[in-house]
Amino acid sequence: MKAYRLTPGAGLSGLERIDLPTPQPGPHEVVVRMRAAALNYRDLMFARGNYLNRGWEPLVPLGDGAGEVVATGAAVTRFRPGDRVIHSYFPGWIDGEPDPAKTAGSFGTHFHGTLAEAFVVPEQALVAMPAHLDYAEAATLSCAGTTAWNALFAAGGLQPGASVLLLGTGGVSILALQIAKAAGLRAVLTSSSDDKLARARALGADATINYRTTPDWQHEVLRLTGGRGVDLTLEVGGEGTFARSLAATRLGGTVALIGGVSGFGETTLAPLALIGGAKRIAGILVGSRAMLEALARFVEVNRIRPVVDRVFAFDAAAEAYAHLEAGRHFGKVVVQGVE
Amino acid sequence: MKAYRLTPGAGLSGLERIDLPTPQPGPHEVVVRMRAAALNYRDLMFARGNYLNRGWEPLVPLGDGAGEVVATGAAVTRFRPGDRVIHSYFPGWIDGEPDPAKTAGSFGTHFHGTLAEAFVVPEQALVAMPAHLDYAEAATLSCAGTTAWNALFAAGGLQPGASVLLLGTGGVSILALQIAKAAGLRAVLTSSSDDKLARARALGADATINYRTTPDWQHEVLRLTGGRGVDLTLEVGGEGTFARSLAATRLGGTVALIGGVSGFGETTLAPLALIGGAKRIAGILVGSRAMLEALARFVEVNRIRPVVDRVFAFDAAAEAYAHLEAGRHFGKVVVQGVE
Amino acid sequence: MKAYRLTPGAGLSGLERIDLPTPQPGPHEVVVRMRAAALNYRDLMFARGNYLNRGWEPLVPLGDGAGEVVATGAAVTRFRPGDRVIHSYFPGWIDGEPDPAKTAGSFGTHFHGTLAEAFVVPEQALVAMPAHLDYAEAATLSCAGTTAWNALFAAGGLQPGASVLLLGTGGVSILALQIAKAAGLRAVLTSSSDDKLARARALGADATINYRTTPDWQHEVLRLTGGRGVDLTLEVGGEGTFARSLAATRLGGTVALIGGVSGFGETTLAPLALIGGAKRIAGILVGSRAMLEALARFVEVNRIRPVVDRVFAFDAAAEAYAHLEAGRHFGKVVVQGVE
Amino acid sequence: MKAYRLTPGAGLSGLERIDLPTPQPGPHEVVVRMRAAALNYRDLMFARGNYLNRGWEPLVPLGDGAGEVVATGAAVTRFRPGDRVIHSYFPGWIDGEPDPAKTAGSFGTHFHGTLAEAFVVPEQALVAMPAHLDYAEAATLSCAGTTAWNALFAAGGLQPGASVLLLGTGGVSILALQIAKAAGLRAVLTSSSDDKLARARALGADATINYRTTPDWQHEVLRLTGGRGVDLTLEVGGEGTFARSLAATRLGGTVALIGGVSGFGETTLAPLALIGGAKRIAGILVGSRAMLEALARFVEVNRIRPVVDRVFAFDAAAEAYAHLEAGRHFGKVVVQGVE
Repeated sequence: MKAYRLTPGAGLSGLERIDLPTPQPGPHEVVVRMRAAALNYRDLMFARGNYLNRGWEPLVPLGDGAGEVVATGAAVTRFRPGDRVIHSYFPGWIDGEPDPAKTAGSFGTHFHGTLAEAFVVPEQALVAMPAHLDYAEAATLSCAGTTAWNALFAAGGLQPGASVLLLGTGGVSILALQIAKAAGLRAVLTSSSDDKLARARALGADATINYRTTPDWQHEVLRLTGGRGVDLTLEVGGEGTFARSLAATRLGGTVALIGGVSGFGETTLAPLALIGGAKRIAGILVGSRAMLEALARFVEVNRIRPVVDRVFAFDAAAEAYAHLEAGRHFGKVVVQGVE
Repeated sequence: MKAYRLTPGAGLSGLERIDLPTPQPGPHEVVVRMRAAALNYRDLMFARGNYLNRGWEPLVPLGDGAGEVVATGAAVTRFRPGDRVIHSYFPGWIDGEPDPAKTAGSFGTHFHGTLAEAFVVPEQALVAMPAHLDYAEAATLSCAGTTAWNALFAAGGLQPGASVLLLGTGGVSILALQIAKAAGLRAVLTSSSDDKLARARALGADATINYRTTPDWQHEVLRLTGGRGVDLTLEVGGEGTFARSLAATRLGGTVALIGGVSGFGETTLAPLALIGGAKRIAGILVGSRAMLEALARFVEVNRIRPVVDRVFAFDAAAEAYAHLEAGRHFGKVVVQGVE
Repeated sequence: MKAYRLTPGAGLSGLERIDLPTPQPGPHEVVVRMRAAALNYRDLMFARGNYLNRGWEPLVPLGDGAGEVVATGAAVTRFRPGDRVIHSYFPGWIDGEPDPAKTAGSFGTHFHGTLAEAFVVPEQALVAMPAHLDYAEAATLSCAGTTAWNALFAAGGLQPGASVLLLGTGGVSILALQIAKAAGLRAVLTSSSDDKLARARALGADATINYRTTPDWQHEVLRLTGGRGVDLTLEVGGEGTFARSLAATRLGGTVALIGGVSGFGETTLAPLALIGGAKRIAGILVGSRAMLEALARFVEVNRIRPVVDRVFAFDAAAEAYAHLEAGRHFGKVVVQGVE
Repeated sequence: MKAYRLTPGAGLSGLERIDLPTPQPGPHEVVVRMRAAALNYRDLMFARGNYLNRGWEPLVPLGDGAGEVVATGAAVTRFRPGDRVIHSYFPGWIDGEPDPAKTAGSFGTHFHGTLAEAFVVPEQALVAMPAHLDYAEAATLSCAGTTAWNALFAAGGLQPGASVLLLGTGGVSILALQIAKAAGLRAVLTSSSDDKLARARALGADATINYRTTPDWQHEVLRLTGGRGVDLTLEVGGEGTFARSLAATRLGGTVALIGGVSGFGETTLAPLALIGGAKRIAGILVGSRAMLEALARFVEVNRIRPVVDRVFAFDAAAEAYAHLEAGRHFGKVVVQGVE
């Protein structure tokens, strides 16, 4: 079958087309014909060779995707050929609290990923696609969607009507915006582009801030919330944003920290801001299959269509990486499956 | 000032017009000029003399209302004249878990209520009205709104995308429907009237069931949820509904029990249904001021306009009681303040 | 290998000795040499043929047990021969919320149980035994222990210092007493025997009530708690206890309902007691492997030794059933493995 | 009445004896005859003038204390003369989530504190003393005790059997140790003194580490927990401990950050450690009256006697400050009331 292999450390030049044997499912495995694969910032870091500050073996990259079941192992009971499916980011984290075993590996980094004609996955990692989505839309849910869901409702514990601050217009922030509005939250979003801010408002953002023209945007967030601050900030790790995010978050609120646009650089933390503000910082490690299922149900009930910035042909996967790297996207960058 | 007094036990014939001295606020109290008062089923029971199975003294009835601050005590800091306000059901239950002291008394039963030209209330019981509401709409939030909020999100702990079953089209059920849909829940509603079911669908109900033509409606709920059952049923205490509600609720789900249309009659409980289903039954005792504040914020963020079935003039308060008793309403029954 | 087979419906006369082929593990399975098996009330109901009000096939009975790993399937990674293990009640409920698939079957009712020389179990259902326990003590944890843990800390959500009411001196109540005291709770226990009450006090019970000499024991519970009631009652389903349990539980508290001594008879429920008291009733369906792991860790940290009423030889299994049925035990009834 | 006044900025030389008028209670206030006042690290910072990085007015210092009600305002209902009481750190934070109004001020910094013959306090801030405690012991609960309770059970959400890492032998750490053990937790404690470590083990510490002889103590914590790390670290803000605390905490665990021994200096935070570890950092702002009440109940149920390092006479208050500053204490430093 057709696939890509990525040799980490060389950036996009490490991406090459290869042929792999058609995968066969083990007893508890399912073979999925990939119809779409979505990129995340970690995939760029993996290509550059600096993901999680450790070395990696070459493999089929990308963790997210959506497709159709084409073969099932003898012991498989939850799915059958023809089912449209997505999969959870960590195949071992089904439910409950995370632990090292559950989060030991993910697709496209620790084992073969989704940038291939087909993909083998344990049946326990699969979730039925929301019926109203196309494959490109569904491919956005595993990593970006689950991360947003976890931050808002699992780690964040937000109730309807709560306020959330979203930084930028990358995949997680825009999905979080769509989810937040459908869940009755109030959303404030920042960007350096007035055009993108206008698009965010069209998606329901209650307020937007151009962080270029308003560099001390935390004050504007406080103003917009009557001096109180937002209940939760979804911090994607931008340069120099952390202290502002903490300041923009209310007493007793949460800064949810996800891997993001500027990698994982060190930051300084003023303990007094945390203690005096009774604030929490929560590291968000994507999430469990149970969270993805809850998200899929929510997306279906509310007929949410995740914003896909652009879909690239399978042959143009390298361009998809470059597009994500350029940072001008709004929403998710997706690669189509082999036609 | 103009007011009504209700002598419990005689039904509507116990309702009479009286004149009361214009109220003066104590140091921590506020006088509110009532612009609207809303009726709840408990007000009918109070009139009949069977509320909570105990005797009551005559007083100004009704617990819900909305109005304008006209005078404040010397120590009051949270509100000032001109503020548009609603108040929490239990003036003593500000926050946290309930206890006997916090829930010791409510307006219109234990102390003077809102069916008067003005109303004296401790400042700590007041909450600012959502700005986009008129007084009649705002008057629905204290009891019915807080009860629905508590059932769905506090006691119920529902996450976005969860499913809820609502019984009938009374005030709590219709408010719960509006809240549920704005919070991204899936809502199924029952009624004996196809007209009302159509109105519920127009308000966003995902599915509706006519319990007259489908008397075993729990099977239909199961069918609508893929055999699983809803996450939460808001049981308003209808005749013979309890066992059906429990059956319509998923394994691990909750039946939230509120005081309701058929009073508080005994029911039978099959422990096996609870244990084998790992289900919970939660008695909902309205809620705290913190819940009302969360609701008010949510209503404001989502521009919810509570459904008011009909507004009666102050002079026609008895007709409002009769209208509620007739049971043909859809949403809340409200009495206007003195013009 | 040596085993018992129980044909449901005939009581103890349905229990017979058989020989079964020595079990072989599937790829993800483990064979455990049983060293102890513990009885629960459901095992009596199963023998009588009235468990869960449905028919059952003959099989190796009993769900609880502890033993030593003697063989592992090719894909097994979590355990190896020599490990001392217990197993979770529902092999499919690993973590998170229950659902019908997770709770679809348990050992000794839906599939072969522990009253045999050896026992085959999916590796995912196994948990390491607390190191300081002997097999008889460890055998008590799966069903009775997990049920008590779930009631107190998962469904019940009790914090240290909370008060709990325990009914009787059966396996769940006595384990709950031991757990409660080691967790810093206040425990009140009832029994009809002053001797048993003295033993309960020796185990740490803060107060005890003889329900024979104090038939309206709910008043005594209220007196002992300053009129407030306990935070949680662990209701084991005794005859006519339910309304008293509800009355003995504080406003905002929980009655945790488990399958118990008098089967699963119907009871009446006064909704007003639930609503006016903001109380919850929670059906407890044993629990997940994660709960059993938490319990095992807790038992180990606190060096708890579960009370074993009596250990019967493997050949005397029928006597163990009879002893449980007689209802004079204090703690758990255990059958030793084949010597 | 006799009192001390502290003029911030000059350290202990700012402490002087004064005479104040005997306090009179307002309608909702209570006058407490102080029998003991306890010191916290913040009181040293207040004396030095660097507390919360802002200026302060001279006033009666110290926030913690225990005493006897001697006078009550006309509207007071919860207490009467003779009652033995403690008070909550923030008089405005009764229950529920914190907010700026609730946490606007505390005794001994924003308004007069406890280092005086008597003390005026709103009745809503008072809590009954656990009956078995003497005044010196009870005086430790408000700030240090509530902080430990909040960290472990409110913000931390620990269940029985969980493991906690405590740094040093200051007031909060030693109280947390006593609380943790009575609640069935596993406790690991660090100190630079083997003598203190021996005392901690005598109080129940399951393991101890001398951080002087084991400077990379985080590795030892991991070894002690099978490589997993503790569920929660109570980080008191020691020099250079933060990154070690984070490393010693398990995947999915919490570092609870309290104001502590080395003030509130900046630290660096590696986001990857938080994200990849799904860890949380929680700023602990003491806690509410509801938390203090829960703690008081827990202390009473479990007959805990908080460790008091040393009790100084009222006239020797300056020596108490100096003793705390010297940092050789084990547990709390207390000043007796006026004889």
